[in-house]
Amino acid sequence: MATDTRDRILAATAELFRRHGYTGTGLKQIVAAANAPFGSIYHHFPGGKEQLGVEVVRSSGAMYWELFPLIMDAADGDLVAGIELFFAGAGATLVESDYADACPIGTVALEVASTNEPLREATADVFASWVDGAAERFVAEGMPADRARPTAIAVIAALEGAFMLSRAAKSTEPMDAAGAVAAAAVRAALA
Amino acid sequence: MATDTRDRILAATAELFRRHGYTGTGLKQIVAAANAPFGSIYHHFPGGKEQLGVEVVRSSGAMYWELFPLIMDAADGDLVAGIELFFAGAGATLVESDYADACPIGTVALEVASTNEPLREATADVFASWVDGAAERFVAEGMPADRARPTAIAVIAALEGAFMLSRAAKSTEPMDAAGAVAAAAVRAALA
Repeated sequence: MATDTRDRILAATAELFRRHGYTGTGLKQIVAAANAPFGSIYHHFPGGKEQLGVEVVRSSGAMYWELFPLIMDAADGDLVAGIELFFAGAGATLVESDYADACPIGTVALEVASTNEPLREATADVFASWVDGAAERFVAEGMPADRARPTAIAVIAALEGAFMLSRAAKSTEPMDAAGAVAAAAVRAALA
Repeated sequence: MATDTRDRILAATAELFRRHGYTGTGLKQIVAAANAPFGSIYHHFPGGKEQLGVEVVRSSGAMYWELFPLIMDAADGDLVAGIELFFAGAGATLVESDYADACPIGTVALEVASTNEPLREATADVFASWVDGAAERFVAEGMPADRARPTAIAVIAALEGAFMLSRAAKSTEPMDAAGAVAAAAVRAALA
């Protein structure tokens, strides 16, 4: 039961961060959305909003990453097709959610980069884990090791920038354009 | 004198948005940073923080854009070299500012995308003006018109995503990796 409350708080906070960011999300909103008593936040997260924020960044970052190998598996060893599928899926999720559901940590990453070291480090660790995971997969599928890391970084940067431009414009055109360039970068790195 | 105050408020707000975002910037902080009386915000911006935010997004977006033709001129007609210079300059500015000075509107764009329509539209208009301006320049330097727009979008998305990853990691590695892929995309679109 206690664990349920903790999980509900984490899930509700992750959803609020996606739409309102870290600064724009208040503890009162969190307990209302989690259907939890106010005191439960400090019971489960003695460090308050900052500790909760760090845990949400790490857990939602890890969950989002799970999509990557799943989609790559669906492309059955074709890395370029896998990247195209990933960006197409991101675009479809944007449309379905009226351009609200994007990267779970991108907004927080920009908000805290110059103002909150524990949170900045959490976002940096999540991005680093994505880069390592993607680069490892690229190498496993035949990309030379020295090209895998910069290519993985560029693909993730393209995705994050495309989320920003697509959400602003309420259009998948940026996601499509960034996906094409990301796929071309993967193709070139494999050659 | 009145105009000076207005300009000081706009400049101070732009600087605060860069580091703290829209939600994290308060009117008290703005008047303190602008050395202006509190009432002057409502005198110059009767719509309060939202109107001020819209004007700051539009003015700082227009100012940031001025860098693009300047840097392209410096590359003297070599679009690929121009893109490389632009990303290298963005990386150098990040280092000089301890990873605080990045895109003036990126953080705000993600914060407001699902929560504030007038501000979302302002960020969308700024990104659209950058895309149009870059695409026009690409065509003027010999890129086929049908490739210029998606290439411009992908370059700007790469820049925004690289700002996010570089600020999080406090490293220019993402800016370098994204710049290389953006330059390759421009080279491919010219071929």
